[in-house]
Amino acid sequence: MAAQRYGVWLVGACGGVASTATLGLIALKHRAIPTWGLVTELPRFAALPLPGWEEFVVGGHEIRPVVLVDELRQFARHNRAFEPGLVDAYEAELTAVQPHIRWGTVWGATEAIRKLAGPDVPEDHSACQAIERIETDLRQFQEEHRLEHLVVIHVASTEPPIPKDELPRTWAELWPWLSRKEATIIPPSCLYAIAAFRAGCSYINFTPSVGPDLPAITELALQRRCRYMGCDGKTGETLLKSVLAPLFAQRNLRVLSWVGYNIFGNLDARILDHPAHKTSKLTTKDQLLGEVLGYKPQTHVSIELVESLGDWKTAWDHVHFAGFFGTKMVLHFIWQGCDSVLAAPLVLDLARWSILAWKRGEVGLMPFLASYFKSPYGVSQQDFFAQFQLLESWALGPQAAKLAGS
Amino acid sequence: MAAQRYGVWLVGACGGVASTATLGLIALKHRAIPTWGLVTELPRFAALPLPGWEEFVVGGHEIRPVVLVDELRQFARHNRAFEPGLVDAYEAELTAVQPHIRWGTVWGATEAIRKLAGPDVPEDHSACQAIERIETDLRQFQEEHRLEHLVVIHVASTEPPIPKDELPRTWAELWPWLSRKEATIIPPSCLYAIAAFRAGCSYINFTPSVGPDLPAITELALQRRCRYMGCDGKTGETLLKSVLAPLFAQRNLRVLSWVGYNIFGNLDARILDHPAHKTSKLTTKDQLLGEVLGYKPQTHVSIELVESLGDWKTAWDHVHFAGFFGTKMVLHFIWQGCDSVLAAPLVLDLARWSILAWKRGEVGLMPFLASYFKSPYGVSQQDFFAQFQLLESWALGPQAAKLAGS
Amino acid sequence: MAAQRYGVWLVGACGGVASTATLGLIALKHRAIPTWGLVTELPRFAALPLPGWEEFVVGGHEIRPVVLVDELRQFARHNRAFEPGLVDAYEAELTAVQPHIRWGTVWGATEAIRKLAGPDVPEDHSACQAIERIETDLRQFQEEHRLEHLVVIHVASTEPPIPKDELPRTWAELWPWLSRKEATIIPPSCLYAIAAFRAGCSYINFTPSVGPDLPAITELALQRRCRYMGCDGKTGETLLKSVLAPLFAQRNLRVLSWVGYNIFGNLDARILDHPAHKTSKLTTKDQLLGEVLGYKPQTHVSIELVESLGDWKTAWDHVHFAGFFGTKMVLHFIWQGCDSVLAAPLVLDLARWSILAWKRGEVGLMPFLASYFKSPYGVSQQDFFAQFQLLESWALGPQAAKLAGS
Amino acid sequence: MAAQRYGVWLVGACGGVASTATLGLIALKHRAIPTWGLVTELPRFAALPLPGWEEFVVGGHEIRPVVLVDELRQFARHNRAFEPGLVDAYEAELTAVQPHIRWGTVWGATEAIRKLAGPDVPEDHSACQAIERIETDLRQFQEEHRLEHLVVIHVASTEPPIPKDELPRTWAELWPWLSRKEATIIPPSCLYAIAAFRAGCSYINFTPSVGPDLPAITELALQRRCRYMGCDGKTGETLLKSVLAPLFAQRNLRVLSWVGYNIFGNLDARILDHPAHKTSKLTTKDQLLGEVLGYKPQTHVSIELVESLGDWKTAWDHVHFAGFFGTKMVLHFIWQGCDSVLAAPLVLDLARWSILAWKRGEVGLMPFLASYFKSPYGVSQQDFFAQFQLLESWALGPQAAKLAGS
Repeated sequence: MAAQRYGVWLVGACGGVASTATLGLIALKHRAIPTWGLVTELPRFAALPLPGWEEFVVGGHEIRPVVLVDELRQFARHNRAFEPGLVDAYEAELTAVQPHIRWGTVWGATEAIRKLAGPDVPEDHSACQAIERIETDLRQFQEEHRLEHLVVIHVASTEPPIPKDELPRTWAELWPWLSRKEATIIPPSCLYAIAAFRAGCSYINFTPSVGPDLPAITELALQRRCRYMGCDGKTGETLLKSVLAPLFAQRNLRVLSWVGYNIFGNLDARILDHPAHKTSKLTTKDQLLGEVLGYKPQTHVSIELVESLGDWKTAWDHVHFAGFFGTKMVLHFIWQGCDSVLAAPLVLDLARWSILAWKRGEVGLMPFLASYFKSPYGVSQQDFFAQFQLLESWALGPQAAKLAGS
Repeated sequence: MAAQRYGVWLVGACGGVASTATLGLIALKHRAIPTWGLVTELPRFAALPLPGWEEFVVGGHEIRPVVLVDELRQFARHNRAFEPGLVDAYEAELTAVQPHIRWGTVWGATEAIRKLAGPDVPEDHSACQAIERIETDLRQFQEEHRLEHLVVIHVASTEPPIPKDELPRTWAELWPWLSRKEATIIPPSCLYAIAAFRAGCSYINFTPSVGPDLPAITELALQRRCRYMGCDGKTGETLLKSVLAPLFAQRNLRVLSWVGYNIFGNLDARILDHPAHKTSKLTTKDQLLGEVLGYKPQTHVSIELVESLGDWKTAWDHVHFAGFFGTKMVLHFIWQGCDSVLAAPLVLDLARWSILAWKRGEVGLMPFLASYFKSPYGVSQQDFFAQFQLLESWALGPQAAKLAGS
Repeated sequence: MAAQRYGVWLVGACGGVASTATLGLIALKHRAIPTWGLVTELPRFAALPLPGWEEFVVGGHEIRPVVLVDELRQFARHNRAFEPGLVDAYEAELTAVQPHIRWGTVWGATEAIRKLAGPDVPEDHSACQAIERIETDLRQFQEEHRLEHLVVIHVASTEPPIPKDELPRTWAELWPWLSRKEATIIPPSCLYAIAAFRAGCSYINFTPSVGPDLPAITELALQRRCRYMGCDGKTGETLLKSVLAPLFAQRNLRVLSWVGYNIFGNLDARILDHPAHKTSKLTTKDQLLGEVLGYKPQTHVSIELVESLGDWKTAWDHVHFAGFFGTKMVLHFIWQGCDSVLAAPLVLDLARWSILAWKRGEVGLMPFLASYFKSPYGVSQQDFFAQFQLLESWALGPQAAKLAGS
Repeated sequence: MAAQRYGVWLVGACGGVASTATLGLIALKHRAIPTWGLVTELPRFAALPLPGWEEFVVGGHEIRPVVLVDELRQFARHNRAFEPGLVDAYEAELTAVQPHIRWGTVWGATEAIRKLAGPDVPEDHSACQAIERIETDLRQFQEEHRLEHLVVIHVASTEPPIPKDELPRTWAELWPWLSRKEATIIPPSCLYAIAAFRAGCSYINFTPSVGPDLPAITELALQRRCRYMGCDGKTGETLLKSVLAPLFAQRNLRVLSWVGYNIFGNLDARILDHPAHKTSKLTTKDQLLGEVLGYKPQTHVSIELVESLGDWKTAWDHVHFAGFFGTKMVLHFIWQGCDSVLAAPLVLDLARWSILAWKRGEVGLMPFLASYFKSPYGVSQQDFFAQFQLLESWALGPQAAKLAGS
């Protein structure tokens, strides 16, 4: 039994990312898998007082009528991303997580999301009521496990963009507005963020959904002395863009056009196949280049549902650039990554960093986590290595970071 | 007429890189082409006292019986890398360079290189004699043009590796040894370097050949208060490796294997098709990964002559890596770049930086130029962005560099 | 001077395909270029009485206020697909074509097309009037050059699909309907086809536009004893599909999904960037797989305008297939072809085959030309090699074809 | 219990191809997997009297001290090519095969092969003795299972080429020569072929090794009225070449160069990493293009051992071709296939076709199987679809084949 206990609360608890993270966490406790993919396991961070894997407990919200262990079994069979035997080996521990997976809310959700929901998802009669129900779940989990600290991480399906300007701008105005019947333009991701802050949790938005990114909600976060960061985990094509674009910039090679075609077939892809939902994703994927290059080349990002690929996100990027004499040349890359397997260790990393920030007494935005996100809140720097230096400086201090990097 | 004059002396003056650099320099003087590909033209370096393009004159050594302007015309037609009209437009200025292209030496050259040489290449009776002949060419060029400073840049064909341990280790020992008949294991690239230092020039080794990289020769460089750097210009596949490998390292993704297949058809490729010559190249291309990653994944680099591609170097790299759970994933990239067009602006950049270093009174190795080379002398850092920070810090000072990067 | 004269009339005469075909035809007359890309120049067809290149004259319709030789010069500079010197060399002959390029019609054209039209394009007051004007152009051209036969080939921009069922189904009904003011749902491609048949010409639809593909118009073709074929020239990605899909079929490998991403930047791409126009293209590109495989895998074809690519059409296809045990595997291909240079020789081939068919007294559909088209009229066979055997059998007779193939 | 019984005897019985074929056969008996990848299961062949899967029994030779079911388990874990549960499900049947796996011979084998052999492999004192021992194994297997017919299929590691001209050219001469001590230049693949023919079996050479391809051995085959075919199963890169090269030929597109880079990490790759062994493979992979195109473009085939890929053979092919005007264009393809999973169904197909040929009373070479091989014995036709028509014509008769294809 660990001396201290920390919690990770996954919104979308039976989805690919969350279930993979949960299985991975259990396997890490048993030292059954390598620590590859976990940034917090790099030797340079070994001396930090990061929580140990054995100190974590997992809970979460889910709206689909599914069972965690079954979802993992199906994932293993369909995607061949990890040994199916791993699910068998830890079936008992995975089953023990199930009672801590509570019904999420569909207040403010689109039809595409509502269709996924099971018949037992409680009907919330207002956004306030949903928030309070979620908050209760979070508080009960903290108490039941006597948690030092709980980190809520949103890994549910991408929501469409919302008209932010139509919402109240202060917490004092937003809270009463949330009890109105017409407060349905606020999406679930915001309700989870509000509940998390009311329950004193850290909040990580791993998706392009709005979540905490409204003035009234960040005001609440500060008022409750919480930490938060987002948005949209940077796992594949955009990650590569954030290292390749600086190369073109620093070698003064002119990017004429940069287009990418992303194909995959998991639940995320099925939701993104709804045009309104896709809009959010395309925005976070496409803003990086202008910021890194200092000019706007022609860009195009396409995301298509290809059922047979399952969780294997495949991307082809075609970068057309001009060098000396204006001579046109081409860099293509093809990325074949298992999306949940790429995302899961980042989710665990983010839980650890959030707890370290909490231990250090930090409050509010965590810009040093920018390297994890496609659209980092409050950080315009889109060069991956510059972002990574933010993390090293914060974690190790500027001097130690310099040594770690060399 | 420019107030000051600087020289660039290109060893291999009619080769693809040198002739392209020469044409490019003339076109830059006329502001006829964009400045893309030139790092020294980045806005952040605008305030530095770098020499202007109009201040440069070009000369060089060549062993092939060819004419610069004809070689450029053939290059333009064969590779379609720049407008053939550009050669026509600057024919007079290109022809004016021709008298400053002198016969190089084949002392110590392999049969593959000797076959390229014209019948009029002088027969040098010793390495010393070759050095003195070359030195005279360099001194005459400096005097004729009243040059402030001359930078010698080696862009000739790749030589095979040599048994460095069999050569004298001090300049005092090397110089008399060079007058012996048996001093044929020393290759031409060393003779050019020695001559350059004796003539007070800066020396850049843009190839994987030995050049200045012998203790006795660097001793001479310091003694004559010269500057030098190398080796092997980083233009394509290795450049990408030097930005992608740090990504895998920092995300703790385990590289299982990284193999690359390079195909092209220019003169360099025809020389590299000789196994002894290829060895030098494979070594500089393949050492980076271990240094960046901290472990040695399986690697393989293949370089093949494909005549039809001409100067268009095409590379396919297959990076096999493991993430969380040990799940194997793949990144492929395909690079299609015109080799000489990529290299030429770097050659011009290196001339400018060397002159700036000379103005600043620097002597010896120029490690701040590491980002230009596959195997930078004296620098083990192989992360491109870390190397680039060395350049920014040196050029702008540490504080300004920090601002430039953000 | 050739004993006999044949004409090729290109609708869209200054577009990429037509201008490239015109230049190529002139260069072929001078034996200045290889015959690569021309199927009619295969040795197996050497004994056929195909018209010689020197027997051809070129004319056409165009709506843009442009000059053929200027368009070619810009094409050469922008795309580097052929020597710019070629345009200079044949400037006189290209200029001699200009008087035979007449104003086309924009009756029934979409706004996207109308925007391209010059101010001097005559305003036609009815579809009939447009047809009669076009017919006059064709007849004058035939008379002026004393042509044995004239082949009209439609290589203008792709039009949107039309509601075919709303149009009269017989020629007797269609002709009077065409004089009505409301007959604007009939697009220009149909008017050119009607005019061609009224003038006794053969007609080739190299685009996905409707052209002759209406019952009333094919009725007219037969009545006038004309030949016709289409539609949509098969030059790149679809060509590859038509050889790769039969491989999967015959090896009993199950195609799970086949998706393709096409990018290019010529005028065709700019027109296809209008959603209504794109629909026509996506349809012809995507129907092949089901027919070859006998089942419908998931497919997706994307076409995007990437300005910097110009005429260089680049496609990435990802074929996901299952073998023994249902094991999933992948074939990717990347195609980098210059669209007009691929299409032009096919246009010249089609003119030659049409003339041979006319000499042989054939009337109506020319199914033996199926291998040239993405959606061959009247032919469900989509296997390229089976289609090619149709051509060999027709051209050489079944026995000779068998020998040619072996 | 099946009314009739046929045997498949796999030389290299525990290797990737053989073990996968054995597992697949068992799974087919249970109808537990789809029939994808099996050409004999195409609907067009449904009416043929091909043996049913339940009629087959499996045996084989092996020199490595390994157990079939263990090898399959390791293969499943390492390559994730099929469900590991499949091996568990059929463990009993797989274990029942083990007694029918006999020790092969290393007479004439290279050191690379001998190193793989277990200590219990019998020491044969002459090639004759090895042949007789193998023949005895084959006869016992036939008798024990009362087999109607036995097909021997060679799927062991690739051997180096041999000096064929130094071997006796008639069977009458070869047989006594084989009893000499110095008859070690004859490799194991020949000994298996001789033994097979002496035992009245059909023989399929699925590798580039010599096997039956010596005049004296084919003479024996005819004398014993046996059937045989080879060589080197066409599963991936070469298969694609055999459909793409005819496209370039028929469209008169000039292939300038065609180079391929193959990487994989199974036992076959480890043996091919020995230069002498690799020579055999490169020869069969590289001869196709000249035969299809009618001229020899520059070609290069590279095969490299990349351990991490296991059985997943990955190939990048770069096809550089010229079209109209001599314009250079590129087709690249990337193939990612699981080698054993691709080969196994072809092995089962070949067993079935050989049995059908035996039923039909055919003797000697089976050229109608050419589509299965990279270097089909006695067939110069390298166009896959033309080869496939040979199979259809033989199997269905010329008329039915024509219908099947349409």
